[in-house]
Amino acid sequence: MTGAESLVQTLLNGGVEVCFTNPGTSEIHVLAAMDKAAGLRVILGLFEGVCTGAADGYARMAGKPAATLLHLGPGLGNGLANLHNARRAFSPLVNIVGDHATYHLKHDAPLTSDIESIAGTVSGWVRRCKNAAGVPGDAADAIAASLKPPGAVATLIVPADCTWTESAAPASALPKTKPEAVDPEKIDRIAKVLRKGEPAVILMGGPFLMEKELRLAGRIARVSGARIIGDRLSGRSQRGSGRVSFQGLPYHVKPALEMLEGTAHLILVGARPPVSFFAWPNLPNWLTPAGCEIHILAAPQQDGLQALETLAGELNAPGDPAGVYELKRPEPPRGKITAEKVWTALAALMPEDSIISDEGITSSREADRWTAGAPAHDRLTLTGGAIGQGMPAATGAAVACPGRKVFCMQADGSGMYTLQALWTQAHEKLDVVTVIFANRSYKILEGELEQLGGPGAGPKAGKLFDLTHPELDWVGLAKGMGVNAAKVHTAGEFNRRLEAAVNTPGPHLIEVVL
Amino acid sequence: MTGAESLVQTLLNGGVEVCFTNPGTSEIHVLAAMDKAAGLRVILGLFEGVCTGAADGYARMAGKPAATLLHLGPGLGNGLANLHNARRAFSPLVNIVGDHATYHLKHDAPLTSDIESIAGTVSGWVRRCKNAAGVPGDAADAIAASLKPPGAVATLIVPADCTWTESAAPASALPKTKPEAVDPEKIDRIAKVLRKGEPAVILMGGPFLMEKELRLAGRIARVSGARIIGDRLSGRSQRGSGRVSFQGLPYHVKPALEMLEGTAHLILVGARPPVSFFAWPNLPNWLTPAGCEIHILAAPQQDGLQALETLAGELNAPGDPAGVYELKRPEPPRGKITAEKVWTALAALMPEDSIISDEGITSSREADRWTAGAPAHDRLTLTGGAIGQGMPAATGAAVACPGRKVFCMQADGSGMYTLQALWTQAHEKLDVVTVIFANRSYKILEGELEQLGGPGAGPKAGKLFDLTHPELDWVGLAKGMGVNAAKVHTAGEFNRRLEAAVNTPGPHLIEVVL
Repeated sequence: MTGAESLVQTLLNGGVEVCFTNPGTSEIHVLAAMDKAAGLRVILGLFEGVCTGAADGYARMAGKPAATLLHLGPGLGNGLANLHNARRAFSPLVNIVGDHATYHLKHDAPLTSDIESIAGTVSGWVRRCKNAAGVPGDAADAIAASLKPPGAVATLIVPADCTWTESAAPASALPKTKPEAVDPEKIDRIAKVLRKGEPAVILMGGPFLMEKELRLAGRIARVSGARIIGDRLSGRSQRGSGRVSFQGLPYHVKPALEMLEGTAHLILVGARPPVSFFAWPNLPNWLTPAGCEIHILAAPQQDGLQALETLAGELNAPGDPAGVYELKRPEPPRGKITAEKVWTALAALMPEDSIISDEGITSSREADRWTAGAPAHDRLTLTGGAIGQGMPAATGAAVACPGRKVFCMQADGSGMYTLQALWTQAHEKLDVVTVIFANRSYKILEGELEQLGGPGAGPKAGKLFDLTHPELDWVGLAKGMGVNAAKVHTAGEFNRRLEAAVNTPGPHLIEVVL
Repeated sequence: MTGAESLVQTLLNGGVEVCFTNPGTSEIHVLAAMDKAAGLRVILGLFEGVCTGAADGYARMAGKPAATLLHLGPGLGNGLANLHNARRAFSPLVNIVGDHATYHLKHDAPLTSDIESIAGTVSGWVRRCKNAAGVPGDAADAIAASLKPPGAVATLIVPADCTWTESAAPASALPKTKPEAVDPEKIDRIAKVLRKGEPAVILMGGPFLMEKELRLAGRIARVSGARIIGDRLSGRSQRGSGRVSFQGLPYHVKPALEMLEGTAHLILVGARPPVSFFAWPNLPNWLTPAGCEIHILAAPQQDGLQALETLAGELNAPGDPAGVYELKRPEPPRGKITAEKVWTALAALMPEDSIISDEGITSSREADRWTAGAPAHDRLTLTGGAIGQGMPAATGAAVACPGRKVFCMQADGSGMYTLQALWTQAHEKLDVVTVIFANRSYKILEGELEQLGGPGAGPKAGKLFDLTHPELDWVGLAKGMGVNAAKVHTAGEFNRRLEAAVNTPGPHLIEVVL
């Protein structure tokens, strides 16, 4: 049994069922081994950013890792931005990077680079296989490292000769690390704080914006009067009818400060102390008001569910949580199309249990409000701010959850980063509806430039944020990759196209001209 | 004057005239300053790999750096593969990466990452600006570092507050470092070796595959009987009529060994000792024959031109070099289209002084032979093996050389990596003709899998290298980004489309269905 064969069987033993890849010569033996193995689905991306983003989307929905298989340092580099997002999402991910044969590295052949340094910036765990015999053990360690709460990118660098040389038997799955228990005394202290009745906020984030955790937070909110705010950049949040609602902390500093104004106690559940996304001149970047005390109920790697449960018990919280969403589907809107109408139509028409991959950027700022009456669904958001996540993550989510409809709400500028995802959706016949918000600009940057005031944007910078001359034609781009597509200019047209896409399996793209 | 304004003026003082960028909020002040400055051309890429590849192509043709302006670690990550190629091409490049404000970094906001570690893998020089006052000096140092022979990527990390704070006056250009002189005794020793008349090869590479250097090598070849071989992966080579010809060292091990067989002395001029691109099981990776002595005439950072001149003098080389290409344009071919016929048609129809960005991979293996009768031209090749270079490099070359026709000979699989370059070509009305070799597969990997022998490719791996189901439609993709495009199935059609593209300025794409 070669190193490649033992690697693949170890992945299967560890529950890894999918590999997203764009391989090269140094990974060819692993690929041949995957080809022979039953139970491993190998999915090709036409760019590594698609593969890593898909593995992230898969992990967020499946709660377990997919593997990637990338081609040396440049392949890893191409996948880096979405690994950055995966890191911020705490997604378990077994990131396999092929390298030159051990004895070839010293010659510094053209593709040689320092893979460890690149990988270290996005990984919770990095190891290089030393020899073929060690490969199965290394792979089992990688799987375990990826699953260690709260989840991490585990990068295994595999020199080519370790894949083609005789190896050892495949390794069994290692026991899973449980999340750390929260110190009961800490919970007790927080219960005391909440009993005081001073203005409190429960800031939920990381892996805890899920139905069960939110329900407990809603019960605590009911008994304590605390408000629930969610970190908008958490990897996955469960929303819609029957779930406990939360306010998303706004991107812009002023509304974020307003939302937190008067808070005496901030209880963190998987979230970090709130800071602004960027620092801006003449604006604070630390968002809690002066005198606000910060209490950590659970860090992302801790057992937040148990901590919330204990806290609810200590507070004698009633069984009925505060702020449960009710199903109140809006009417499909009419007239001139806007971002609001797109989201409203989605709330009107999406099936129960849909998945929304949201990279609408400026077109998604009010999405919480616009989907408040929607049926139960999951939303995946841009955790790390590295754009080009939306379509790959939708791709991976669709692989993880066959039978659930996936909607990708995608800004046009960001969408261009990893548009190759559409080909994989077509190739794998995935049930993804991509909605492009075609505002023909980097609208977020137009806003930034306006904020600078004074002379403002001159002719060159203005041109820079403008995606016209020529206009992108998303219908042509999608069809060029085999995805059925249509362009719409009115809300009525959008409703019709969306309804048709909901009722027809397979990938679709709707370009919404704003 | 802000740090941003002083940065931009320092770039101009140092001769930097172009910036390829996809900026974000943290770079907005630099962008506003560029907007106000006369003389700096700001060019938008819809993905950072386009920007870095264009800056590389620009540098290879202009011999001086362009700037990039990238958005934190993820923006740098997206540009990393083409920076890897730029490093291997010794391209001078001022790689500006925006970062969070100095006081914001400690909060580890979502976009924060370890930029230095990523940048270090592709840069000859990395520095982080400490404050606004230091920015102009840092920028002048970056320019100088990029231009230090043989040329390098110089990465300057610029925290946002260093751009918006009051700074110092712009810095002047620093004196350029001259290439190191080669020790005359070393040249003398190599002259003695060549006078012996034993079988010798002059292996040219790095920055020295240029007309003048090749001419001197041709004169040395004439007097000594040495053969000239070129490193096919050098950034730029000057070829075609009136230039001294060289054989390209083959990609595959067996023909490379055959080409070097019997060589007693290998004289390196900018090239490194030849090793295989990958290591393969049961094949050597060191390519020189046993007993072959290696002599370094000039390393890439040295004055190779002067060393060749001195060597030619010592050998009393005649004025007329050996192996000069003659203009012998082939007839435009007819019938079924093949890669050979595409290159032959190019040799038949391309204008004098064209630039060829070659990422044809398997479709370009014999391009040297097929373009032997072509007029004088420059060829840019995939230096670092990180695919997705072809179209961005063509874009940058067209910016560097207005008035010269640029041909991008592009494999379909690699082309999908950075297809967004087409939009920049349309936006900037660049004179680039892209030829897509649409073999609908990762053909190089099909070959690798066949070499494995034994059970060979099963159904899954076979499917992996197959870019059909659905087929990519490059005409749709190109038109979706505003580039005029056509699909051809015969040599006759290709000739007609190529001729039309040669005679009509602006970007064109021809999809050749192989």
